[in-house]
Amino acid sequence: MKRNPYFEQISNRYLFQEVRHRLLHFKDKSPDARVISLSIGDTTEPIGPHTIQGLHDAVQALGDRATYTGYGPEQGFADVREAISKTIYQGKVPSDDIFVSDGSKCDIGRLQLLFGPACSVALQTPSYPVYQDTSLLFRNNPLILLPCTAENGFVPDLSPAASADILFLCNPCNPTGRAFSFSQLEQIVHFAIKHSITIIFDSAYSSYVQPGFPKSIYEIPGADTVAIELGSFSKIAGFSGVRLAWSVVPSKLNYSTGQPIKPDWMRIATTFFNGASIISQKGGMAVLSDAGMKEIDDQVNFYLANTKILKEAFTERGLEVYGGTHSPYLWVRFHGLSSWQAFDKMLQDMHIVTTPGIGFGQAGDGFLRISSFGSRASVTEAANRIKGGCLCSTQQ
Amino acid sequence: MKRNPYFEQISNRYLFQEVRHRLLHFKDKSPDARVISLSIGDTTEPIGPHTIQGLHDAVQALGDRATYTGYGPEQGFADVREAISKTIYQGKVPSDDIFVSDGSKCDIGRLQLLFGPACSVALQTPSYPVYQDTSLLFRNNPLILLPCTAENGFVPDLSPAASADILFLCNPCNPTGRAFSFSQLEQIVHFAIKHSITIIFDSAYSSYVQPGFPKSIYEIPGADTVAIELGSFSKIAGFSGVRLAWSVVPSKLNYSTGQPIKPDWMRIATTFFNGASIISQKGGMAVLSDAGMKEIDDQVNFYLANTKILKEAFTERGLEVYGGTHSPYLWVRFHGLSSWQAFDKMLQDMHIVTTPGIGFGQAGDGFLRISSFGSRASVTEAANRIKGGCLCSTQQ
Repeated sequence: MKRNPYFEQISNRYLFQEVRHRLLHFKDKSPDARVISLSIGDTTEPIGPHTIQGLHDAVQALGDRATYTGYGPEQGFADVREAISKTIYQGKVPSDDIFVSDGSKCDIGRLQLLFGPACSVALQTPSYPVYQDTSLLFRNNPLILLPCTAENGFVPDLSPAASADILFLCNPCNPTGRAFSFSQLEQIVHFAIKHSITIIFDSAYSSYVQPGFPKSIYEIPGADTVAIELGSFSKIAGFSGVRLAWSVVPSKLNYSTGQPIKPDWMRIATTFFNGASIISQKGGMAVLSDAGMKEIDDQVNFYLANTKILKEAFTERGLEVYGGTHSPYLWVRFHGLSSWQAFDKMLQDMHIVTTPGIGFGQAGDGFLRISSFGSRASVTEAANRIKGGCLCSTQQ
Repeated sequence: MKRNPYFEQISNRYLFQEVRHRLLHFKDKSPDARVISLSIGDTTEPIGPHTIQGLHDAVQALGDRATYTGYGPEQGFADVREAISKTIYQGKVPSDDIFVSDGSKCDIGRLQLLFGPACSVALQTPSYPVYQDTSLLFRNNPLILLPCTAENGFVPDLSPAASADILFLCNPCNPTGRAFSFSQLEQIVHFAIKHSITIIFDSAYSSYVQPGFPKSIYEIPGADTVAIELGSFSKIAGFSGVRLAWSVVPSKLNYSTGQPIKPDWMRIATTFFNGASIISQKGGMAVLSDAGMKEIDDQVNFYLANTKILKEAFTERGLEVYGGTHSPYLWVRFHGLSSWQAFDKMLQDMHIVTTPGIGFGQAGDGFLRISSFGSRASVTEAANRIKGGCLCSTQQ
């Protein structure tokens, strides 16, 4: 068998594999170190009792002949799609345009199939590595990179993307934590309409968006003619291991030929996917109830309070800190150090694992992404180490 | 955005969407008909109590800070991979070569990424439509079709596949129900070694294989140098809605350049997937225990007894019936009728939904696939209708 030649275009290791590799090496050398992870954006708080009960009920139903069900519809149960429409979008996105899935990462991969081998992809740099890696494994068109730097306030100049077919956007941005304002997002939508670009709007962290800022791209008029939106239960409901997400492909969204995209997305769902676990979906129904949404709010506020503690610590150390307002992530700049140097220093000196900014693209070099997912005790301990630790020495 | 041009190569509707569409039309016209489904291969029996307890325990763990976990490893938990190695493969396949997933259909789609756009794919016809559809959406190389007919005993002549890079095989075969003997599978493996073909061996129905026949391709010496195997909990443990499966990519499996395939599969897993639901995985651990395997045996025997009842009914009607020995499916021939004509007749005359054989490829025309997933009561009722009903008239 021949190898997909496009593997040559991506690195051998996915970012977090490399982080794990370096961490294991460190632990091998320093077995007694109490390492705190502020690295992978992984939830740590337990799922609330109302949602847990929903998951139990789903399991129980599978044990009884009268309530047992096998395959669900590939695009998700109708009640889950309706609840997402109602609770997340206040009914403004029709349930028929919503497709339930097992994760946004998986949806990004499947979306590449809609675009085909010839299309041109633009994306922010730094950004979630999956946009880039999945794009490069499907085709050999060069990517159009849109730098998001401290200097441009992490809002990219879109003009190089005028020729693109696809524009990946993450809002609030992973890793920079930046959330677009209404006027910024309006400009982006108008740009996409003008240049016939389809936006893939990854809103996995939308529950962290503060009032006065758009949570969904569909809050911008006309966006339903140019944008696919991805949403996820991972970070809002502690479902990173449970696996539940959704995509919105509006009926009004067309290919440049005028042909609608939605039927093809349905074809992809039925051909490459068999539905999210029905247990996860019933858990999602519990999340989307009033009691479940209260549990979400509590979790989001808990993680945002963690973010505040960490932001203060880095600021006290005199470092440039971005993000953290609309996001569980901080984006911390280390002048004079590469990302991997800063990563190694934080690990060696403070026994804190972080995520090197360069893992999100060249424009992320010199930064670390700091995740505030963690128990209050470990985040407070990390903050103390940051305030008291030394960032200038490599000695242990 | 441009449309992936390869959509032109596949039909607009996935097979079972078309079946549902015709069924809804029929129900609309005949609202009082008590329709029995022998169509989609979907489990109907409840999950056994031991496995249900395993699922409950997994849910409970998510509700407690001390036991909560977020993302698991993309390739699955180590204990699940070890249990698959031990229980399914008696330790003969190392756990490190096993990758846990959310379904074989999803794995087939992701495997296409390994092969890249230039490779040549061979497959049995009739076969599970996902092999063909996922292949055609990735590339425009013509498929090499290997007919499996009553005349060749549903064992294909492989010689047209000598130039292929990839050979999809399903064993026991969906839809024909045929299971390869040891000598047949040995010949296939030798052919693949001789012609440097990688086999994708879909063993989703392996628990139906009767003693004296190979359940896994790795029972054939040398297969670990040419074969990827797919396994699934869907049909063996009633997990079609729970979503749990696995793939085996042996360390010894190389590209034609000698480069190992396994690291690329790990890269695909980490880039396009985020792990199967941890609830499903813990349920899988319960399935793979002694008590869980007993529950599986009971389910397999239950469905095989259904198959026997249906086989007798069709035989009594004088129809040619294949399969059903190593498989929950019958493959029934209707001389003088196309598959869709036979489908419509079964629906109109007997109010039984089946799956048209042509949905699995041209060579399946004139056949129906009959699934024996169903309660004993509905299968017995279906058998009575088959024995007593009229297959010769279109009147209702």
